[in-house]
Amino acid sequence: MRIVIPLFDRFTALDAVGPYEVLKFLPEAEIVFAATKPGPIRDVPTSLALTADAAFDDIDACDVLLVPGGPGARRLLDDDALLGWIRRMHGGTTWTTSVCTGSLLLGAAGLLAGLSATTHWGAVDVLESFGATYTAERVVFQGKIVTAAGVSSGIDMALALAARIADQTTAEAIQLAIEYDPQPPFDAGSPAKAPQAAKDLLARGI
Amino acid sequence: MRIVIPLFDRFTALDAVGPYEVLKFLPEAEIVFAATKPGPIRDVPTSLALTADAAFDDIDACDVLLVPGGPGARRLLDDDALLGWIRRMHGGTTWTTSVCTGSLLLGAAGLLAGLSATTHWGAVDVLESFGATYTAERVVFQGKIVTAAGVSSGIDMALALAARIADQTTAEAIQLAIEYDPQPPFDAGSPAKAPQAAKDLLARGI
Repeated sequence: MRIVIPLFDRFTALDAVGPYEVLKFLPEAEIVFAATKPGPIRDVPTSLALTADAAFDDIDACDVLLVPGGPGARRLLDDDALLGWIRRMHGGTTWTTSVCTGSLLLGAAGLLAGLSATTHWGAVDVLESFGATYTAERVVFQGKIVTAAGVSSGIDMALALAARIADQTTAEAIQLAIEYDPQPPFDAGSPAKAPQAAKDLLARGI
Repeated sequence: MRIVIPLFDRFTALDAVGPYEVLKFLPEAEIVFAATKPGPIRDVPTSLALTADAAFDDIDACDVLLVPGGPGARRLLDDDALLGWIRRMHGGTTWTTSVCTGSLLLGAAGLLAGLSATTHWGAVDVLESFGATYTAERVVFQGKIVTAAGVSSGIDMALALAARIADQTTAEAIQLAIEYDPQPPFDAGSPAKAPQAAKDLLARGI
């Protein structure tokens, strides 16, 4: 089972690595990080680089496409080469998935028109500009398309996906392996829950 | 504020990237991934590489040391060069931290003797062999040493640490930025919660 994760400059690393860490446990999973050209791809703020081991053009098809988001995603919404590649991959996938603003790339590729979808809470308007209906859920399944909310939600999405690809016991075994028993020290993980002072600080750029 | 994350072959990527994604938001954070030699460092099962931008020997000191775990950590418990470097860094840190079996490296370096600490649930015996007392908590603060449980716990640890380094509002703003409102689809994230079938499957290697 080939799982492809496209990378681009200024992607968000946890969007990619969270689901990666789950899906890598699936039997016969082969995970490929890809980019326009192979080599190190920098996230923001440039301190971290993941290596792309394949070029987009070298990948004919995949079973699972997992598109991360990040500040760089918004710069690629009119990148015909990338969007065309996403459409070609989607044509052959069993599952087409995104994390955070990766859903904007699915939307820009025309895959979300008329569907419910989610994204980072700060990107709702852009998502809906592609004809999707934003749903304030952590993970949204629509046929073979699965979108997840901001950044850390990719872990939840990948566990739900692992249960569909394999079975619930497999997903639970993976959850145990990564000791995913989250205990956030604060309860500020969504706009509905975060104190106003935290929202104000984030709006100012922390 | 310099935060250094050491990498080694067969590290677990989420151990490093989870806390990275939180701590990078701290004002004036400079995060450096380091290894014996700069270049790409592979996790298990070899599909992902993070780039180390510095060599251990090039780093004189840091404010925060964050040691990830992974299968490779257990192979380094008698690596005098790495353990000596960890001790040198620890001598100048404000915070010395670990995720998952990263705490075994802190233990092997002699930093945990007589302290309470945590680690991945599967590594308790090794942790205690270094004179630490295992505590089944998600995050354990002992003076300036902070240990976190398995893999995904690094996100919780980093948010707690961000509140100590900055303040709670800053940590909450970061939690909102990464939309960390976890909703695991199953409740199997610790040995106390996981169904026996999931434990058995994991014991067989999934």
